[in-house]
Amino acid sequence: MRLGIIGGGQLGRMIALAGYPLDIRSTVLEPGTGSSAAQVCEHIAGEFDDLQALYKLAQASDVVTFEFENVPVESARWLAERVPVFPPSRALEVSQERLAEKQFFQSLGIPTPPFAPIESEADFHRAVAEIGLPAVLKTRRFGYDGKGQAVIRTPDEANAAWQKLGGRPLILEGFVKFDRELSLVAVRGRDGQIVTYPLIENVHIDGILHRSIAPAPDLGEELTERAAEFAARVLTELNYVGVLTIEWFQDGPRLLANEMAPRVHNSGHWTIEGALTSQFENHVRAVCGLPLGRADAVGFSAMYNFIGDALPTPAVLANPDAHLHLYGKSARPGRKIGHVTLRANSAAELQEKLPEWDAQFARK
Amino acid sequence: MRLGIIGGGQLGRMIALAGYPLDIRSTVLEPGTGSSAAQVCEHIAGEFDDLQALYKLAQASDVVTFEFENVPVESARWLAERVPVFPPSRALEVSQERLAEKQFFQSLGIPTPPFAPIESEADFHRAVAEIGLPAVLKTRRFGYDGKGQAVIRTPDEANAAWQKLGGRPLILEGFVKFDRELSLVAVRGRDGQIVTYPLIENVHIDGILHRSIAPAPDLGEELTERAAEFAARVLTELNYVGVLTIEWFQDGPRLLANEMAPRVHNSGHWTIEGALTSQFENHVRAVCGLPLGRADAVGFSAMYNFIGDALPTPAVLANPDAHLHLYGKSARPGRKIGHVTLRANSAAELQEKLPEWDAQFARK
Ligand SMILES: Nc1ncnc2c1ncn2[C@@H]1O[C@H](COP(=O)(O)OP(=O)(O)OP(=O)(O)O)[C@@H](O)[C@H]1O
Ligand SMILES: Nc1ncnc2c1ncn2[C@@H]1O[C@H](COP(=O)(O)OP(=O)(O)OP(=O)(O)O)[C@@H](O)[C@H]1O
Repeated sequence: MRLGIIGGGQLGRMIALAGYPLDIRSTVLEPGTGSSAAQVCEHIAGEFDDLQALYKLAQASDVVTFEFENVPVESARWLAERVPVFPPSRALEVSQERLAEKQFFQSLGIPTPPFAPIESEADFHRAVAEIGLPAVLKTRRFGYDGKGQAVIRTPDEANAAWQKLGGRPLILEGFVKFDRELSLVAVRGRDGQIVTYPLIENVHIDGILHRSIAPAPDLGEELTERAAEFAARVLTELNYVGVLTIEWFQDGPRLLANEMAPRVHNSGHWTIEGALTSQFENHVRAVCGLPLGRADAVGFSAMYNFIGDALPTPAVLANPDAHLHLYGKSARPGRKIGHVTLRANSAAELQEKLPEWDAQFARK
Repeated sequence: MRLGIIGGGQLGRMIALAGYPLDIRSTVLEPGTGSSAAQVCEHIAGEFDDLQALYKLAQASDVVTFEFENVPVESARWLAERVPVFPPSRALEVSQERLAEKQFFQSLGIPTPPFAPIESEADFHRAVAEIGLPAVLKTRRFGYDGKGQAVIRTPDEANAAWQKLGGRPLILEGFVKFDRELSLVAVRGRDGQIVTYPLIENVHIDGILHRSIAPAPDLGEELTERAAEFAARVLTELNYVGVLTIEWFQDGPRLLANEMAPRVHNSGHWTIEGALTSQFENHVRAVCGLPLGRADAVGFSAMYNFIGDALPTPAVLANPDAHLHLYGKSARPGRKIGHVTLRANSAAELQEKLPEWDAQFARK
């Protein structure tokens, strides 16, 4: 089986690597050469809206998927006329636009932070008055890793935020005083089978994921079941195929949906060592029409990102609990270079080792 | 780091795949194109004694290893003058010749079946008289998967065996009425650190490995420690770097060394899912001078080979305990096409599921 992947980053790389044991060979479409994924599989150089490149990808693939949500919807549609493309393009549409996304959650009865659409300065002032402060002003499109957003605590900050972001379609969200952030990685097969990983606890620094722990500590069963049930609504409504991730704010017993990603997710990297089947393998299985694998956790895992630069490999591997994943990228500020997953046999062992791991893998 | 691998089979493939997460990129040397390993990494086409090809491999590599033990010793030596080569060539010499191998075990005080060298028909008759029947006559070189050997139970079979194999350097071994066959996978780092996987129980059919179970059931601690201690003697004596496998016959409380392989081993494939660090990753770590990973078992695993042909992928993956590994090879009688590893959480669960797994993955 030949798998096409739109996007050549580390997610594409780990998808391609997960394919090989199933004899599934990947080709990535990516403008540059030497990308993270292109180092481990075939590569077509081209922009994501270059029809000639897309045509080549269709020719090289029995099924096509993508590793980032800003794939042009038109490209996905054009490809889908020639070769099966999963997840479906409607999932792209919904997750590319924060307003559509929040409205979509609402339509399925999934709680979100309060929000208001903003087209003009008048809308903005009305929304601030209505939602109240603190709030978060966000561009509707192309935000990632906390870019394109501003937290507003005071009227002065409101003006500054408008200066910075005004003039584009925006959304104002109430600032959630969450206890913590969680994410749920779920996967749906071509036959409708759904498999859900345990909830994950995430800590961000400067808007970029720093640490994930899975299964998230101190979770009631009730919360886990609710998150899985919400994810099932999304997957079923979209007739989804592949891995989907939903990010949540936990506020006491409440779960509020922040956003969704129609793809494998940084917060799911621990599944390579920490679950019976990795998110990458399950994504490949789903889009290729194969039965899904079990998503149970094997022990208790913590994952840390390497941002900008990685610790020297010997130093990482000197920690006997460490599993290292480098993405073949050169160091550059703010860039995701790799990650490390550490596994413990019990929740207690994880809590005991966490301070030491936090210190070793603190973001520089 | 750039790793050169002599040999392009499935062992090379799985070594190359284990390198990527550590940002170690591999190049395999293999005469044919489209080999199992060449599908997943760079490839130099050439015979194993082709100096031009070996030169290219040295240029493309920071360190070189091999995935089969019949690498010409001269090639390994020639390469070692240009680039670090691990394991050391003496390990090749010893394991390429059954007589040297048995004498080597003996010199380290490691028990073996009784054996006698045979250069002539007179030697043969003397050896049969001395060792007694049943016995096994084997060529000293190039035996694998039970090829190049004959079991002798009667004087008539002795004549037939001589007709078949006589005229080459041979070895006669006493036939061991073993309880079972075991193997031990161990790894030694460049700094002398040794890590040992749990003992593995192996069942062969027609001289080819069929099933491995790890950790081997019903093992005393005494046996495990003895095997590890014997392996440490071999590793230390050879100043070895990388993974080494020793195959054993268990006869009650006795362990008799059958042979050793200076490489990752078919009986260690379960370590991908069933151990904290796979044999492939630990081999890569060792030859690249990195700290070794833990070799503890995670649960209880059974591994079955697919010989000649594989079951259809959907049928394999429909078993929720199955982890499939295909090698990208076409079907052909007697060929190792792939394997499947099944994991249980307890020894009891493994024993309970074994009959069903045995039936599903019975050799055709
Ligand atoms: N309404 C909110 N209330 C409180 N904190 C928020 C809110 N929205 C965003 N944040 C904080 O900012 C972080 C980034 O926000 P968001 O996920 O919307 O941005 P993004 O740029 O799309 O990030 P990602 O790379 O995760 O997709 C969140 O993880 C959270 O910590
Ligand atoms: N001395 C012996 N006594 C009893 N059985 C033996 C003996 N030697 C070999 N056998 C049986 O034959 C099998 C293959 O023998 P051996 O390992 O020597 O061959 P090989 O061709 O080198 O195999 P491999 O592919 O494992 O390297 C053994 O696994 C064992 O089942």
